[in-house]
Amino acid sequence: MELNGVTIDDTYAEAFPIWVSRVIITAVTEQWAYKAATEATGFATSTIGCPCEAGIDCFVPAESTPDGRPGYAIMICAGKKKLKEQVVERLAECVLTAPTTAVFDGLADVAGDVDETIPVKLHFFGDGYEEKREIGGRTVWAIPIMEGEYIGEEEFGAVKGVAGGNFFVMGENQMAALTGAEAAVDAIGLVPGVITSFPGGVVASGSKVGSLKYKFMGASTNEKYCPTLKDKVSESMVPDGVGAIYEIVIDGVSEAAVSEAMEMGIRAAVKVPGVTYISAGNFGGNLGPFKIRLHEIL
Amino acid sequence: MELNGVTIDDTYAEAFPIWVSRVIITAVTEQWAYKAATEATGFATSTIGCPCEAGIDCFVPAESTPDGRPGYAIMICAGKKKLKEQVVERLAECVLTAPTTAVFDGLADVAGDVDETIPVKLHFFGDGYEEKREIGGRTVWAIPIMEGEYIGEEEFGAVKGVAGGNFFVMGENQMAALTGAEAAVDAIGLVPGVITSFPGGVVASGSKVGSLKYKFMGASTNEKYCPTLKDKVSESMVPDGVGAIYEIVIDGVSEAAVSEAMEMGIRAAVKVPGVTYISAGNFGGNLGPFKIRLHEIL
Amino acid sequence: MELNGVTIDDTYAEAFPIWVSRVIITAVTEQWAYKAATEATGFATSTIGCPCEAGIDCFVPAESTPDGRPGYAIMICAGKKKLKEQVVERLAECVLTAPTTAVFDGLADVAGDVDETIPVKLHFFGDGYEEKREIGGRTVWAIPIMEGEYIGEEEFGAVKGVAGGNFFVMGENQMAALTGAEAAVDAIGLVPGVITSFPGGVVASGSKVGSLKYKFMGASTNEKYCPTLKDKVSESMVPDGVGAIYEIVIDGVSEAAVSEAMEMGIRAAVKVPGVTYISAGNFGGNLGPFKIRLHEIL
Amino acid sequence: MELNGVTIDDTYAEAFPIWVSRVIITAVTEQWAYKAATEATGFATSTIGCPCEAGIDCFVPAESTPDGRPGYAIMICAGKKKLKEQVVERLAECVLTAPTTAVFDGLADVAGDVDETIPVKLHFFGDGYEEKREIGGRTVWAIPIMEGEYIGEEEFGAVKGVAGGNFFVMGENQMAALTGAEAAVDAIGLVPGVITSFPGGVVASGSKVGSLKYKFMGASTNEKYCPTLKDKVSESMVPDGVGAIYEIVIDGVSEAAVSEAMEMGIRAAVKVPGVTYISAGNFGGNLGPFKIRLHEIL
Repeated sequence: MELNGVTIDDTYAEAFPIWVSRVIITAVTEQWAYKAATEATGFATSTIGCPCEAGIDCFVPAESTPDGRPGYAIMICAGKKKLKEQVVERLAECVLTAPTTAVFDGLADVAGDVDETIPVKLHFFGDGYEEKREIGGRTVWAIPIMEGEYIGEEEFGAVKGVAGGNFFVMGENQMAALTGAEAAVDAIGLVPGVITSFPGGVVASGSKVGSLKYKFMGASTNEKYCPTLKDKVSESMVPDGVGAIYEIVIDGVSEAAVSEAMEMGIRAAVKVPGVTYISAGNFGGNLGPFKIRLHEIL
Repeated sequence: MELNGVTIDDTYAEAFPIWVSRVIITAVTEQWAYKAATEATGFATSTIGCPCEAGIDCFVPAESTPDGRPGYAIMICAGKKKLKEQVVERLAECVLTAPTTAVFDGLADVAGDVDETIPVKLHFFGDGYEEKREIGGRTVWAIPIMEGEYIGEEEFGAVKGVAGGNFFVMGENQMAALTGAEAAVDAIGLVPGVITSFPGGVVASGSKVGSLKYKFMGASTNEKYCPTLKDKVSESMVPDGVGAIYEIVIDGVSEAAVSEAMEMGIRAAVKVPGVTYISAGNFGGNLGPFKIRLHEIL
Repeated sequence: MELNGVTIDDTYAEAFPIWVSRVIITAVTEQWAYKAATEATGFATSTIGCPCEAGIDCFVPAESTPDGRPGYAIMICAGKKKLKEQVVERLAECVLTAPTTAVFDGLADVAGDVDETIPVKLHFFGDGYEEKREIGGRTVWAIPIMEGEYIGEEEFGAVKGVAGGNFFVMGENQMAALTGAEAAVDAIGLVPGVITSFPGGVVASGSKVGSLKYKFMGASTNEKYCPTLKDKVSESMVPDGVGAIYEIVIDGVSEAAVSEAMEMGIRAAVKVPGVTYISAGNFGGNLGPFKIRLHEIL
Repeated sequence: MELNGVTIDDTYAEAFPIWVSRVIITAVTEQWAYKAATEATGFATSTIGCPCEAGIDCFVPAESTPDGRPGYAIMICAGKKKLKEQVVERLAECVLTAPTTAVFDGLADVAGDVDETIPVKLHFFGDGYEEKREIGGRTVWAIPIMEGEYIGEEEFGAVKGVAGGNFFVMGENQMAALTGAEAAVDAIGLVPGVITSFPGGVVASGSKVGSLKYKFMGASTNEKYCPTLKDKVSESMVPDGVGAIYEIVIDGVSEAAVSEAMEMGIRAAVKVPGVTYISAGNFGGNLGPFKIRLHEIL
C-alpha cells in the first residue's frame, strides 16, 4: 500500500492497557497554563524508567473550561496504583505551585463514561483556611496561597486506556525522517484524548525487550531497525534507501483515539519530502491485546 | 533600603546544601536541544514531592560545546544517592530517546573543581554494538539507535551546591507581582550555574514546614504571607498595599552563584511597575547553613 | 453594566470600511508556516504609517487546507488599490521566498460571497519554467525554485470589511491592564475572520485625530485617556483608580466578525485580576459608518 | 576544500553597500521586547519589493541597555534616504505603539564610529505634554500615552554597511538542506551586527537579475540552481546528488561582521547530516564592491 508515494508496511502496532487521567489546567493566560502543563508532564516519556507517561493533549479554549479561562488538557498514564500517586504529586508539585492556575477533571470530555475516580486531596495544604466553592458546575476547593487563591477540583476520573500505539517514520536521511516525525506529532496534537509522551513527541531510540548480550538490561537498542547496523546484523528490517527511523509512540483514552492519532500522524508524515516508508512496532502479537493494523486505519 | 523605589526588606534567604550535576545536551538545532532539555527537567520543582529539582541553566553556543553543535545546559539537584539515580534515569529516558541529542558533562565549566563523579552507563543500551570514541577531547560512547547514533559521555561531575536560595516579589496586585517574577526569572536565566526549578521559574504557593491543623502534612500554606488572610491571621507578614506575593527559588552550584542570581533577579523585578516590596524566606536561621542577606548582595 | 465585577462603559466602537484579503500559507511544518506568516504580516499595524494592516487570523489544520499540510491564515487590509499592491508584494517577498510554503485563497472560508478578485501573478518568476497544476480542487502554478518548487494560487478574493473595531482595557496598573489585553488578544485569536494588527495585538498609545499644538501632525496622543495627565487636562476620561489603558484594535471580514471578536476579547479581559474598566473608542459617531455598542454585544 | 566532509565551493559572495541603523528596543519582559522587535522588522526581506531590509540582530541583556531592562537590537537597512523614512515609520508604528517599550540607539555598540545621524522626532506625538529626560546617560523624550509613558531617544546613528553577504546550503534533499539552513541562521544569530532578513532567515527562491523570457521582470528564478531543472537547462550549477538548495542572505554593519556571520553559519550548516555542498552567489564580480571568498573566511 502506498500513500502519497510512501510505502505503508502491512503490519500492526501492538498496544497495551494503561490507566489514564486527564486534567484541565487553566490560567490567566494561555502561556502560564502552558508552562504549568509542561512542568507537570515532564520526566514522563516511558514507564520503563519514568514514574508515568504524560503529555499535553491539547489546548482548551476558555469557552470550554469550567472557569472560562484558557487552558491545556494534560494526560497522565500509569498502572492503576501508580496513577493515583502521580496525579497527586504532579498536581501538588507542578500545578498548585504554578502562577494563577486552577485544575479541573477533563476526562469525561473525551472518554465519556469513566471507570474509576481518583481523590486528590490538595486542600489540606490550606491548613484550615481552605473552603469549598462551586465554579462552572464543579465543586472545588479554594486554598489561600501567597499569590492569592488556588482553585481545584479534587476528584479526577480514570479509565483503562491504551499505551504504546505507534508507527515508524523512515526517511532517506535523518532530517527527512525527523521532519516527518515532527509533522506527525503536530497532527496528532489535534486529536483529542491522546498524547505523544517522548521529547518533542518523537522517539529516536526505539528499543527491544531485553538484551542479547547484557542480561541485566530490561531493554536495549532494536538493532534490526538501526540503519548503521544494516550490514552487520542478520535480518535487518531497515528498507533499502532508508537512512533514519523515528518512532512515534501514542497513549490514548481508547483504541479508537489511538487509531485516529496513528492515522492523522501517518497522513502528515507522508507529506514530508524524503519520507519513504512507514511501518509499526509489535512483539509478534503475544504481548499486547490491541493490534492496530496500518492498512485498516488508513 | 530602597531600589528603584521598591522597599528591600532587611532579611535573608536561608539555604541548604544539595548535590548538583550539570549536563550539556546538544542537538542538530537549538530547538531540538531545547525540547530534550525541557523533558529532562520536568516534574522536578521540589524534592518535597518530586524525585529531584532540575531546570535549564542556560543556552550553550556551538563554539562552547564539545561537538560544536548548539546546546542547553541543565542542572539536576538532589541528595547524593538520589542524584545518581536521577541523572541516569533522566538521561536514559529523556535524552537518549530524544532526536539528534548528545550529552556531555558541563559542571566544570561553572563549578571549577568537582567533588565527585557519577557514572552513567548508558552504553549497555547498545547491546554490544556500541563503541568508544573521542569527541572534542571527551571520551564518549557511540550507540547505534534507530535514528543513527547516540553520542554520550558517561561520567558526570557532582558538587555540593546550594538549594533554596530565594526571594519574594510583592506587588500591588497579582499581575504586577507576577510580571516582576517573570522579569526576575528571565534575568536569572543569564547567570551561569543556577536554575529556578518551579513552573516558569515561579512559586505561587510558598509553604511553611508542617501544618498547624493537619498533623499528617509535611508542609502547608504559609498563611502569614497570604494576602487574602491578612486580616484573619495574627502577625501577617503581608505589607500594606501588597495584593500578591511570588517566591523565586534558586538552586546553584555555589553560594556565590545563588547570590548573584538573587541579585540579578531582584534588580530585574524592581524595574516592573507595581512591584512594591522585596523580601526573602527563612526559618529563623536554625535549619540552613547558608544565610544570604538581601542588603549585602545588592 | 458589569461583567465579572468589571464596569463596562455604555459606549460604542466606531469602525470604518476597509478592503480585506485572506491568504492561507501552508508549509512542511506548522513552524515554517508560522515564520512565513509572521514575516508577511509585519510592519502592518496601522495604515496611518504602514502600507497596510495585516496579521495572522488563525491556524488552519491540514485537513482544512487544499494541499493537506498545516497552515496559517493571514489577513491583509487596506484601501482597494493599495490592497492589490500589498497582497502581491507580501506574497512575492515574504512567502515565495520562505521555505516549503504554498499559498491559497482563504477568504471564502470565512466571508462567503467575495466582492472582488485580486490577480497575483507570481508565476512570471518562473521565467518560463513554471506550469499550471491542480491541487485540492484549486488551479495553482508550480514554479521551480532553488529549494524545489513553489506552489501558489494566483487569484485572491477581496471583500469590503471593517477596520478599527476596538475596546479599551483599563486596569489598576500597567501589568494588570496589559495582562488583560494579552488575554483578550489570545481569545480573539480563536475567532475566524479577524486580526489584531498591532504588536502582540495590543496598542499602548492610542491616538486622537490631529494635534492641538503641532498642526503638522495627523495624529497625536489621546491626552484625555493618559493616566499620567489625569490631573493636567480638563475632561480626562481616565476613571478613578485606573493606572493604565490599552486599546485592542480589530479588523475583520464583516461587522459580525468584529463584534464577535470584541465580545470574546472583553469576556477574556474581565477575567484578569486588576482589570477594572472596559470602554471603547469613537469619534462622536461622525466618521465611521459602523457603531458597535459594548452593551449590545455582551 | 572540505569541512566536516562537506565540499566548500571555491567561490565568493558578492555584496553591496547599504545604509544601516541599529535600534535597541527594551520592554518590561523579554517577551514584550521580542514582540515589538518582530513587528518592527516584518515585511523587510529584500529591497527588491519591501521598503527596507530588517531583522533582529540579537538579544541585549538588561545590564547592557540604557534603562536596565531586557531588550532586542534590530537593524534596519536601506538606501540613505529610504533609511530615514523607514526608521521613523517603523519606530512610530511598531514600537511607540507596543506595550512597555523604550528605544535607544544601538549602533555604536557594534559599529564604533558612526557615519551619520538620523533624527526621529516622535516626541511631537506628545502634543506638548512630552518632556526631555536623561536615562542611562542618554537624552530621551518621555511621551504620555494611554499605558503611561513612552521613552525614546530621537537620534539614531547610520553607517554604510554591507548587504547581500550570502552562502548556499545544499543537501541530499529538502529537509537536510533546510535544517542546515536553520542551524546556520541560529549560529548567525549569535554574531553581533548582522541580520538575516528573510523568513526564518532563509531564502527558498534565490533569484537572478532580470528574466530571459519576461522582459518586464526585474528578477526571476535562478534556473541554473533549481534542482528540478537540472536536466532541462544548460550549465546547471546543481551538484550531483543535491536535491535542494537554500540561500542565507546576510546584511551587516561591516564587511568583517558579514564575513564572521558567513563563517559561523557555514560551520553550523556542515554539522547537519545530509548537507553536502556549500557555495555562494555572485554576479561575476561586476556589480558589488565586496567579494567575500568562502575559502578565506573558513
